[in-house]
Amino acid sequence: MSVNITPRPEDKFSFGIWTVGWQGTDVFGTAVRPPMPADRAVRKLAELGAYGVNFHDNDVFDFSATEAERDERIAAFRKALSETGLVVTTATTNLFGHPMFKDGAFTANERSVRRFAIAKVMRNLDLAAELGARHYVFWGGREGAESGAAKDIRAALDRYAEAMNTLCAYVQDNGYGIRFVIEPKPNEPRGDILLPTLGHALAFIGSLEHEEMVGINPEVGHEEMAGLNYAHGITQALWHGKLFHIDLNGQNGPRYDQDLRFGAGNARGAFWVVDALEAGGYDGPVHFDYKPPRTEDDAGVWDSAAACMRNYLILREKVRAFRADPEVIEAMATSRIPELSEPTLSPGETWRDVRGAASSTDVEALAVRGMGYEHLDQLALEHLYGVR
Amino acid sequence: MSVNITPRPEDKFSFGIWTVGWQGTDVFGTAVRPPMPADRAVRKLAELGAYGVNFHDNDVFDFSATEAERDERIAAFRKALSETGLVVTTATTNLFGHPMFKDGAFTANERSVRRFAIAKVMRNLDLAAELGARHYVFWGGREGAESGAAKDIRAALDRYAEAMNTLCAYVQDNGYGIRFVIEPKPNEPRGDILLPTLGHALAFIGSLEHEEMVGINPEVGHEEMAGLNYAHGITQALWHGKLFHIDLNGQNGPRYDQDLRFGAGNARGAFWVVDALEAGGYDGPVHFDYKPPRTEDDAGVWDSAAACMRNYLILREKVRAFRADPEVIEAMATSRIPELSEPTLSPGETWRDVRGAASSTDVEALAVRGMGYEHLDQLALEHLYGVR
Amino acid sequence: MSVNITPRPEDKFSFGIWTVGWQGTDVFGTAVRPPMPADRAVRKLAELGAYGVNFHDNDVFDFSATEAERDERIAAFRKALSETGLVVTTATTNLFGHPMFKDGAFTANERSVRRFAIAKVMRNLDLAAELGARHYVFWGGREGAESGAAKDIRAALDRYAEAMNTLCAYVQDNGYGIRFVIEPKPNEPRGDILLPTLGHALAFIGSLEHEEMVGINPEVGHEEMAGLNYAHGITQALWHGKLFHIDLNGQNGPRYDQDLRFGAGNARGAFWVVDALEAGGYDGPVHFDYKPPRTEDDAGVWDSAAACMRNYLILREKVRAFRADPEVIEAMATSRIPELSEPTLSPGETWRDVRGAASSTDVEALAVRGMGYEHLDQLALEHLYGVR
Amino acid sequence: MSVNITPRPEDKFSFGIWTVGWQGTDVFGTAVRPPMPADRAVRKLAELGAYGVNFHDNDVFDFSATEAERDERIAAFRKALSETGLVVTTATTNLFGHPMFKDGAFTANERSVRRFAIAKVMRNLDLAAELGARHYVFWGGREGAESGAAKDIRAALDRYAEAMNTLCAYVQDNGYGIRFVIEPKPNEPRGDILLPTLGHALAFIGSLEHEEMVGINPEVGHEEMAGLNYAHGITQALWHGKLFHIDLNGQNGPRYDQDLRFGAGNARGAFWVVDALEAGGYDGPVHFDYKPPRTEDDAGVWDSAAACMRNYLILREKVRAFRADPEVIEAMATSRIPELSEPTLSPGETWRDVRGAASSTDVEALAVRGMGYEHLDQLALEHLYGVR
Repeated sequence: MSVNITPRPEDKFSFGIWTVGWQGTDVFGTAVRPPMPADRAVRKLAELGAYGVNFHDNDVFDFSATEAERDERIAAFRKALSETGLVVTTATTNLFGHPMFKDGAFTANERSVRRFAIAKVMRNLDLAAELGARHYVFWGGREGAESGAAKDIRAALDRYAEAMNTLCAYVQDNGYGIRFVIEPKPNEPRGDILLPTLGHALAFIGSLEHEEMVGINPEVGHEEMAGLNYAHGITQALWHGKLFHIDLNGQNGPRYDQDLRFGAGNARGAFWVVDALEAGGYDGPVHFDYKPPRTEDDAGVWDSAAACMRNYLILREKVRAFRADPEVIEAMATSRIPELSEPTLSPGETWRDVRGAASSTDVEALAVRGMGYEHLDQLALEHLYGVR
Repeated sequence: MSVNITPRPEDKFSFGIWTVGWQGTDVFGTAVRPPMPADRAVRKLAELGAYGVNFHDNDVFDFSATEAERDERIAAFRKALSETGLVVTTATTNLFGHPMFKDGAFTANERSVRRFAIAKVMRNLDLAAELGARHYVFWGGREGAESGAAKDIRAALDRYAEAMNTLCAYVQDNGYGIRFVIEPKPNEPRGDILLPTLGHALAFIGSLEHEEMVGINPEVGHEEMAGLNYAHGITQALWHGKLFHIDLNGQNGPRYDQDLRFGAGNARGAFWVVDALEAGGYDGPVHFDYKPPRTEDDAGVWDSAAACMRNYLILREKVRAFRADPEVIEAMATSRIPELSEPTLSPGETWRDVRGAASSTDVEALAVRGMGYEHLDQLALEHLYGVR
Repeated sequence: MSVNITPRPEDKFSFGIWTVGWQGTDVFGTAVRPPMPADRAVRKLAELGAYGVNFHDNDVFDFSATEAERDERIAAFRKALSETGLVVTTATTNLFGHPMFKDGAFTANERSVRRFAIAKVMRNLDLAAELGARHYVFWGGREGAESGAAKDIRAALDRYAEAMNTLCAYVQDNGYGIRFVIEPKPNEPRGDILLPTLGHALAFIGSLEHEEMVGINPEVGHEEMAGLNYAHGITQALWHGKLFHIDLNGQNGPRYDQDLRFGAGNARGAFWVVDALEAGGYDGPVHFDYKPPRTEDDAGVWDSAAACMRNYLILREKVRAFRADPEVIEAMATSRIPELSEPTLSPGETWRDVRGAASSTDVEALAVRGMGYEHLDQLALEHLYGVR
Repeated sequence: MSVNITPRPEDKFSFGIWTVGWQGTDVFGTAVRPPMPADRAVRKLAELGAYGVNFHDNDVFDFSATEAERDERIAAFRKALSETGLVVTTATTNLFGHPMFKDGAFTANERSVRRFAIAKVMRNLDLAAELGARHYVFWGGREGAESGAAKDIRAALDRYAEAMNTLCAYVQDNGYGIRFVIEPKPNEPRGDILLPTLGHALAFIGSLEHEEMVGINPEVGHEEMAGLNYAHGITQALWHGKLFHIDLNGQNGPRYDQDLRFGAGNARGAFWVVDALEAGGYDGPVHFDYKPPRTEDDAGVWDSAAACMRNYLILREKVRAFRADPEVIEAMATSRIPELSEPTLSPGETWRDVRGAASSTDVEALAVRGMGYEHLDQLALEHLYGVR
């Protein structure tokens, strides 16, 4: 296999400023790396071949920054963008770091927290629009509860929708041309988080006033924390026309949020993720939301960032080779994969035409006929292994 | 606490015929109990105080029954219903037991399997309508895959929707007045099942032609297998107006589908499940979909069935006492629970009125203010313990 | 049920200084509560009725404290102990918070880290001995890896054993009379942690030079993160004579380490945990290792701490009532629970006497005989509910 | 990469007769494949290049077979072995399929079940010895409970040990030269199974009378059902000298027992499993305990069996290439992997020599030094991908 492993702009690789900038603070230990100014992240990512970045407001300036400090940090960020040619594909709001958000933001019991949160988003939407972001992410990491009575879930969903509706109006009234994306997560840092899977988020979006403006931004690890198949999930999202953005990384099943680099974690699943994106015609940013492990120094940060892109390109080459392999095509035919694309009812048929199907079906023949999936899956695995 | 533990018709307790009828066959062992005719299940459930039953076609007659055998078994079932006064609240189709369904039913790659499956549902819908069922369940247990290429997920969702649309038309054209409910499950018996959580199912329903006819039937254990909070999930479903039916049972987190009796498994979660149903005004059948463990003989089957209802009544009494407890009401006020029901924007306000909220917010005061949830949750736990 | 809910010294309740002192820093947010000096924790816990405390060296003084600062903080701690009468039941070492431990302590690849770590333990063992601690905990939270080649597991186990052997010698040579306890955890903060369950730790202990000095300190949440039954686990540990210490808290299955207060989380499991401790004659400290959720202020911290003890006492009363309930005793007989305590071979029998058992066994009778467990478990659940 | 993918006898590949013979019966559906006589399994496995087989007594003859039927089936089995040259590496007992074992076998509450179970093992040990098996497996799949009071765990461990001790004596007294291996599993088919992980089993073995005769047979899927790292686990077992046998297959984390073919499931984990076996000098049978999915017909059964061996050989080639890659060796040095093999104490040192280590350690230098694991792991991943 010859893989072109040099990331190109058309690959649309992007990173969160907070990913390479993560200092390694966790529940059990303090920072292992110094703070990374947003502009340094931009310059280093550009060197590695990234196309764009995504940022929280407080990735660029501190929560408590003065206006002057804010302006200064934004100017440095903007300068780095300008000099490197990196685009801001996406932006988001930090509504989880400050203690005031300990009970949530849009669904905090305290109304003044909710109002503050909406205002904080609006302010960063202005910056996002100015910097040309096309998508704006809502990860409601603190919208949830550890115990049953702590959150009136019905009221919380009302408030969640109210916030989203208000912010949709804000974008529309300001003519920003930004689309919203909700990023689901089942738990951590809250015991249970609202809109825990991409399915729940998709359903919720259907209840919003401007549902056409809102899609989802599912993250590999967040879905896999619930034991769900991410490739299946994003394909359902594509089927609904709602996969506006993706967050790629790695995870080893139900446990704490690992945010491994893409490719690490569920390696076999990663192959099918790339296949699902290719097959589904996804054309948004290929965004990495991972954390360089706490064992790494600055060099390790960039090694891991580069590896995210490299692994995507390797896997993309593999899935293309898999889909083009004549033996695979034959195995798919044997497994009747194309037959599933044939409507169950012929053109013009109604239930009346199917009503009697049972009597004419050779049940026993169908019972014994094998699907040939093990052969087909082994071909896929050998493409992953690089031995075909 | 004095609990009225005698199930009454207005409690709307119902059971699947297959629950008490489960013979105990699993992957590792053969049946431990003899087959139970549906009519016997009806009579025994009636004795215990159940209100209704739910049945798969093949709970009443075998897959390969002749017409005469079918008629005979249905007659016996109907006679038992008539004599006991039990109602058929719900019905469903066995689209998973026969080897012909090994690759699914509505989403089987084989078109003839799909047509057979739809016809099989139609036939049982006739019986369901005749017996007065108001809801018809779709649990797509075999709609899924063990490996990535085995199922074209986009095509599968097309076929799934096609089947549902066809069957909605069937019900409407026949004037049956039956509503459909989809029962999600993440995995088992397939490696990954389509529509794995109630969220995914709710989103899917939004894409159906007659979405108003279709709701969900979430099962405690199925959601908890994905580590999700069932009480939160059904509250979201209620919020969408889609909780048409429920399946109560018990589970101990991510592992095989345990189908424990209601109350066993996540006992603290069960308290909040009953609370969510009470608070949300759910008025459908309170249905139990559990399996008497393989250790039990016939007496144990009925002990466990009776305990499902008993535990529901005990918990209902507890949640009512919890909600009425003055100390709880005070603790809720301290935790600002009612404040979440106040819209974030005052009547007439738009985003313009919130835009400046940040500057007038006392961030530090909000940061240090505690929520009082531990006190509130402890009160709930003491109601569960029965020590308040 | 009348429960004496006033903790008494003979209940041996103890808390980690770090539990009530947790400031709420997590991966996604900063501290929500101010630092709590160890002496304040001691005084407040004494007020609530605790019997003892457990501390990491750096709960009392900072990692980088000067000798003078260290002495001052220890003096304040000691004064509080002396004035309140609280005992130091247990102590431990912080080998995870500082960045130098990012790759582990006893199993860090860097030899100088390993040597530092052993020295750090020795120094705190001196203090522990001086303060009268009987147990010293080893939680190797950073002993592990995120990726396959990062840790030579065989070498790591050699080093782990070497460290434990060296420290056993230290305790013995100094005549400290302290026993060691290993606290297992499957993952978090490392991707996979060495000695991930109590079983792995028990096996490891069997390979140590002074295995008689070393037992385990299993934590409810750590075992439940792996989906394991904690009551079963501690009973196996008691069977091995190795349950020297316990860490009680709450968890909701495989996910991040929740450290809920005892009673919250798996409420039904908590009942069996207390039963296992009572039945097994455990007489060590009843230690709580939990974290007051980030939503709580100082008042919430103490509410949750008090609730840990209260819940233990409530559950203890319940399990005693359960075991004394004549209907339970009868149900146990029906389930042949006592029969399991009869040796399978009669006194004097060898395999020769059993060899022919098959031919004389009434297999069919055994196949159909039910175990009555649902009835028995329902009685237990009703004791948990407080309705018996 | 050029991989010799033809299994050879020295590869020691073996299969359970029950693996390829699984008919596909599960909780939700009936058999999809006809019964497979043991002799047919032997002949087909020989064709594929297997070296040996493992069998349960009731894989060869039915539980209720007459002596004549038993003899006939054994004769056919033996003939197939003889004609193909396949060896019986291992044998085991079916103590879980028949309803009489619904509450367990060695730990069933019923003493007569326990005696029957021990006798059943003895009888099959005779056959195993006669057929030359070197290992005999104990998978206690029904030794467990669904509820807390149903099993007196301490008594159950006594009975478990009693059974093992009795059977060790049987083997010794008969001079069979067979070693025992315990296969742990956390749950399914029981709610919680005794000896749930390889750690618990190792600890238990340490309490047996003839612990030197007893090792473990960990299965990939069983450990991964608890979220545990299998490669770490078997390395600990090797460290204890107790990895007598292995069961390779595939699993996707905590869920039902999937028994996927080796290579499927956790593909990245499989690489490290083979590495651990190679590095640890494991020389027992490389045994596959998987189930051909229910979607497969007879051809699919053999495709999947062949793929198990093929994937092992592919991965073995990869891990050897990884370990020999100069860039890997350099990266390992950078990550100080070899340094972990250096004892922490120099020859002749005691704790006295380490006691002062803290003062001379350059803590800050260690704090900032990165481990380089991301680079190293990326090299491993690229070996898995076959792009190096």
